[in-house]
Amino acid sequence: MKDFKYYAPTEVVFGEESEEQVARLVKKYGGTKVLVHYGGQSAKRSGLLDKVCQLLSDEGIAYVCLGGVVPNPRLSKAHEGIELCRKEGVDFILAVGGGSVIDSAKCIGYGVCYEGEVWDFYLGKAKATAMLPVAAVLTIPAAGSEMSESSVITNEDGDVKLGYSNNLSRPKFAIMNPKRTFTLPPYQTAAGVTDMMMHTMERYFTKDDDMDLTTDLAEALLRRMKTAVFEVLKNPEDYRHRAQIMWGGSIAHWGLTGCGVSEDWATHQLEHELSGMFDVTHGAGLAAVWPSWARYVMHENLSRFVRFAVNVMDVPNDFTDPEGTALRGIEAMERFYHAIGMPINIKELIGKDITDEEINEMVRKCSRDNTATCGGLKVLHAEDMKAIYEMARG
Amino acid sequence: MKDFKYYAPTEVVFGEESEEQVARLVKKYGGTKVLVHYGGQSAKRSGLLDKVCQLLSDEGIAYVCLGGVVPNPRLSKAHEGIELCRKEGVDFILAVGGGSVIDSAKCIGYGVCYEGEVWDFYLGKAKATAMLPVAAVLTIPAAGSEMSESSVITNEDGDVKLGYSNNLSRPKFAIMNPKRTFTLPPYQTAAGVTDMMMHTMERYFTKDDDMDLTTDLAEALLRRMKTAVFEVLKNPEDYRHRAQIMWGGSIAHWGLTGCGVSEDWATHQLEHELSGMFDVTHGAGLAAVWPSWARYVMHENLSRFVRFAVNVMDVPNDFTDPEGTALRGIEAMERFYHAIGMPINIKELIGKDITDEEINEMVRKCSRDNTATCGGLKVLHAEDMKAIYEMARG
Repeated sequence: MKDFKYYAPTEVVFGEESEEQVARLVKKYGGTKVLVHYGGQSAKRSGLLDKVCQLLSDEGIAYVCLGGVVPNPRLSKAHEGIELCRKEGVDFILAVGGGSVIDSAKCIGYGVCYEGEVWDFYLGKAKATAMLPVAAVLTIPAAGSEMSESSVITNEDGDVKLGYSNNLSRPKFAIMNPKRTFTLPPYQTAAGVTDMMMHTMERYFTKDDDMDLTTDLAEALLRRMKTAVFEVLKNPEDYRHRAQIMWGGSIAHWGLTGCGVSEDWATHQLEHELSGMFDVTHGAGLAAVWPSWARYVMHENLSRFVRFAVNVMDVPNDFTDPEGTALRGIEAMERFYHAIGMPINIKELIGKDITDEEINEMVRKCSRDNTATCGGLKVLHAEDMKAIYEMARG
Repeated sequence: MKDFKYYAPTEVVFGEESEEQVARLVKKYGGTKVLVHYGGQSAKRSGLLDKVCQLLSDEGIAYVCLGGVVPNPRLSKAHEGIELCRKEGVDFILAVGGGSVIDSAKCIGYGVCYEGEVWDFYLGKAKATAMLPVAAVLTIPAAGSEMSESSVITNEDGDVKLGYSNNLSRPKFAIMNPKRTFTLPPYQTAAGVTDMMMHTMERYFTKDDDMDLTTDLAEALLRRMKTAVFEVLKNPEDYRHRAQIMWGGSIAHWGLTGCGVSEDWATHQLEHELSGMFDVTHGAGLAAVWPSWARYVMHENLSRFVRFAVNVMDVPNDFTDPEGTALRGIEAMERFYHAIGMPINIKELIGKDITDEEINEMVRKCSRDNTATCGGLKVLHAEDMKAIYEMARG
């Protein structure tokens, strides 16, 4: 069994009215001048942003606001935030939003404490040794960034989307009120669930079959997300199932589902090129890639794909035909994606045929000009990436 | 659904040779003068204690040792530790052992930073606002104290066993090497698994049926512990299954299995009187009490006992007879306890008949002279406690 480290120190306050704790928590973690970071209009429209600002004011905590973070958050916005934080003497960053806002906040947090260009961290040219503390008031369950150590930023200069992971960036606290997710549109709800399930699956599809407990917990999580999403698509104000999804999104990515196993992450990396190029919703991009990835790599650990089919997708186990069972598991996942409104190939994702040039460009970026690989279960070289994108054309 | 807080900041290093990290971690968390706290001879005999001390020395970290912690750790030992820490200027406590040693370390940590009598915290007369940092090199998976906020201490003056919980006491780090558990005798192995399963079950048996994800994860954990224990009883050096149990013990008690549900804890409180009076192994005491508690309270939430029977104990669901299914689940648990060498009643636990006077004395203590209750699923008054102890006589 693989040795592992586990560290998920974020303090969570979960439930109705949990936002009321925000000022107390900012103080507890030493914030005296806060950057309130947010995305588009929804945080304003819902009144959440005003509420958070009012609560900070009431406690005498100074703050500045910076909105405008977009999905696939941009490096330029982070640069803007870094400059603002320095000018205003900000010592704490509060992200009010989903994964994009939190990832942007992390990038700003790194940048403020670094003399060089913050993109260096994402390029792997430098390692952060200090950063401003970050915390989150979560509104979109998906990325798990509210408790994770990772952030993903898109550099518009070349549409390059890269991730950087560092335990320093784990949010100090995360406030989660499932009611704040009632207004999430069905597509974003489904894409969020797809993303959190994929965070679990990236760790589930491993060569290490001996960390039973991690696998058991992953299956329990996947099954519950799969059930809960239909309930909230039927009734967006179903608090109980919104809560399962909100908490599930955190559990999926804070590290628990990866203890003692090798992780894969090829689907994420293949998707990063898609959303870097077409600016699509990350979760939907994952759904468009995964079935092709799965068929391409399943023989690397067939019994695990059988296990997934049986234990997660409720496919009857044909003990005489493991390959057939595994394939039926992938097909069942495709039916699930369709049932929740997700694509299962690139054509469905972007609404048109992808060109050969576009595929070649994605392969070039994903393989960093044929110098890099991705994936753990099967290490993918440029020709594998190309083959999977071809399979995923639709 | 119940609002909840979640906080489990302990940094875990899990695997073979994980002890090698001990000095680095002590330094990281600010320790300059360490109390190395341990139990009996096994930490010495195994060489672990010497190894830890050598590693501290090699890094130039000063330390003093205090051993002699016994199961059901005593207040007098904690007093000794508090005095030693003050005299020696200790600023970090490293527990090398199982739950008893870690609980004792927590008690010492509280006491050093408190001018009054540390027992006040356990009596509920005071709340700790500061303590020395504590960390653990775990050797016995059971209590979960290596990541939890709780500690349980026995005051020999009256044989009173009380717990105190405070997030301050969550260990800074926990080092877990499954190989260190190879030498655990079968009885202690089984009692440890019983304890960790009960930590999960105390949260599982709730009136709150709407936090599905927590329940799913709890069931996955219970099923895995139930399987893994037989593997390590067959082969004590089965690293894979020792690892499941070691990690399972932490997960069971750090808080994950209680998110969003009301907890019970009556079995633990009823057992504390047993081990307070007879100095038996805590896990064995839990097994001796639980079946009687379960039969006494099952009608408070019958469907949950049915779910336990079916999803954890693999009892076929007789849909026409929920009570029968629930009872068969409790019986299956009794068979499991017997199969791993645990008692299912007090007579089997202490090897003789318990007297009426002893039962009355336990009821008196557990109910604090008929002024206190215990339990969440069903609130137990003195007469309920007496009824359960009577059912559990054997």
